[in-house]
Amino acid sequence: MATLKQVAAHADVSVQTVSNALNAPHRLRPDTLRRVNQSIEALHYRPNRNARSLRTSAVELIGYCVPSPPNGQAHLVMDQFLHALCSAAETTGRHILLFTAPTGLEGMPTYEDLLARRLVDGFVLSQTQTHDPRHGWLKEQRIPFVSFGRVWKETSQPGPFVDVDGAAGCAAATRHLYATGRRRIAFLSWPKSSGLAEDRMGGWRQTCKELGLPTTGLAKRCPKDSIEAGARATAELLDAAEPVDGIVAVSDVLALGVLRELGARGYTAGVDVGVTGFDDSPLASVVSPGLTSIRQPMDEIAGALITLLTGPAGTGTEHLLQPELVIRGSSAPG
Amino acid sequence: MATLKQVAAHADVSVQTVSNALNAPHRLRPDTLRRVNQSIEALHYRPNRNARSLRTSAVELIGYCVPSPPNGQAHLVMDQFLHALCSAAETTGRHILLFTAPTGLEGMPTYEDLLARRLVDGFVLSQTQTHDPRHGWLKEQRIPFVSFGRVWKETSQPGPFVDVDGAAGCAAATRHLYATGRRRIAFLSWPKSSGLAEDRMGGWRQTCKELGLPTTGLAKRCPKDSIEAGARATAELLDAAEPVDGIVAVSDVLALGVLRELGARGYTAGVDVGVTGFDDSPLASVVSPGLTSIRQPMDEIAGALITLLTGPAGTGTEHLLQPELVIRGSSAPG
Repeated sequence: MATLKQVAAHADVSVQTVSNALNAPHRLRPDTLRRVNQSIEALHYRPNRNARSLRTSAVELIGYCVPSPPNGQAHLVMDQFLHALCSAAETTGRHILLFTAPTGLEGMPTYEDLLARRLVDGFVLSQTQTHDPRHGWLKEQRIPFVSFGRVWKETSQPGPFVDVDGAAGCAAATRHLYATGRRRIAFLSWPKSSGLAEDRMGGWRQTCKELGLPTTGLAKRCPKDSIEAGARATAELLDAAEPVDGIVAVSDVLALGVLRELGARGYTAGVDVGVTGFDDSPLASVVSPGLTSIRQPMDEIAGALITLLTGPAGTGTEHLLQPELVIRGSSAPG
Repeated sequence: MATLKQVAAHADVSVQTVSNALNAPHRLRPDTLRRVNQSIEALHYRPNRNARSLRTSAVELIGYCVPSPPNGQAHLVMDQFLHALCSAAETTGRHILLFTAPTGLEGMPTYEDLLARRLVDGFVLSQTQTHDPRHGWLKEQRIPFVSFGRVWKETSQPGPFVDVDGAAGCAAATRHLYATGRRRIAFLSWPKSSGLAEDRMGGWRQTCKELGLPTTGLAKRCPKDSIEAGARATAELLDAAEPVDGIVAVSDVLALGVLRELGARGYTAGVDVGVTGFDDSPLASVVSPGLTSIRQPMDEIAGALITLLTGPAGTGTEHLLQPELVIRGSSAPG
């Protein structure tokens, strides 16, 4: 690739003149500008990284740490999230800079380095942990950030966040199963250590209470987010003295386990037992019957994240968004 | 947030001196530098976007267009790909800038704009289409790019690419099923319009030929990449006069359909019929028995993409990488 120097030599001008042609063309005489531009074209010159440092209309970049490949729950909707996040940033003229970093304190030097090199102007955090060190550090440095997802088990949220009301989603799923005639509705969850799962389960429990439905013995905690674990818990629920007729699962993967166990016993999901999942991942529409699932409003989430991060003060610090129940055959045949 | 001007006023120096303190501290007298830094700290000043344009050590950014949420095949390994791509870029001191763009010609202004604003120095393309307009345009502009994935049905590849040898992957899966005693091995594919699927199917067909195995009537094209479609095709294969004892599927989703149909008939995958998928997505390990699947070597792919894009000339223009067969219970019980 041609260099700035080569362009300057070709046009018989100084390097500074070429730089001006790129960054402050009004400073050049028209004939000089024309000559430099002809050389730029003739040599197929592309501004290199030094030249870029001269740019006058820099664009703000927002850092997003791409999560490590999952060892626990699958990230089945990450492509949807990233697409929505980029789109939302782009409507404000910004872009997303992706980076990787270790979780916890070990990752902080990466954040520090990105800021020190002025590569990003702020961060969107996800995969937030209880006592996540990033929030405190970013706050102290007065660096703009916003989290997708609340932290659990802390007295207050350490900074602005956008999240989806999982409890409301599972409440809606429970009400929907009730409306389709189910009266014994179970909840399949993850281990108790998951604040996310406890929140969702709370929505089911509260709704059952309001509707006068039983909950005793109907909350199952699956050790893993797997089809196998979901199928096993379903088998227990179906083998009980009083079998269930509805199952709200904390994830699409667990719900797929429910569908598998129902199929293995010759039951029809949506007819014999109503089933719902969570996330409306690609899994929900590749099964048959389709899986009723709770969809996180990705565009709204992304829009709120970018607004909280980049908007004027006073746009609030917390957005709890309502998910949408997408009804398919697993809960409502026909 | 404090501005450069406010810092200058606070420190009683010129704006240029503050800028020097940030970008060329050696130019300042130690006591001046100390005073400016104290003001920067006191006002919690963060360089804003104008200040960033003054940076002297710009970093190269690589543009990657985040695919639109799928309407066809699910992007179940996109998080793995992006993590690997970022990591590989970071080992060379670069970062990934994510953006969205319409597919086809309509998307070109977005690429043009990113370059005109000098936001990126090159592109990693994916979701390449037959007669993709991006390759020709980027080539003409002499902008560095590399594709993840070949184009099909064209006489030559329009630019450097990295891809996974899907034919070799399916050949390995077929040989593995043969080695575990299978003698009638079917292939579940997508519609004929998919060059990717035709390539993978070619690996199965060629291997069956070499091993003296039948192929007639054993290649099934599923209309959709869904569990349902995979289950239906499996039902046909099992209902045939000569039933199959092995099934190589072009995707994990179709393979899940195979597992479902086997389960519905009381067969045990891995015992009665050996089954393999493709992509080693999260689906492969959440089912039971685990699904034997063909893993794309994401770290190698990402490393090769970054090398082709940023390395010195002579690092080649084509990398066809070998996938890895990850063996689980669906083909080898035990």
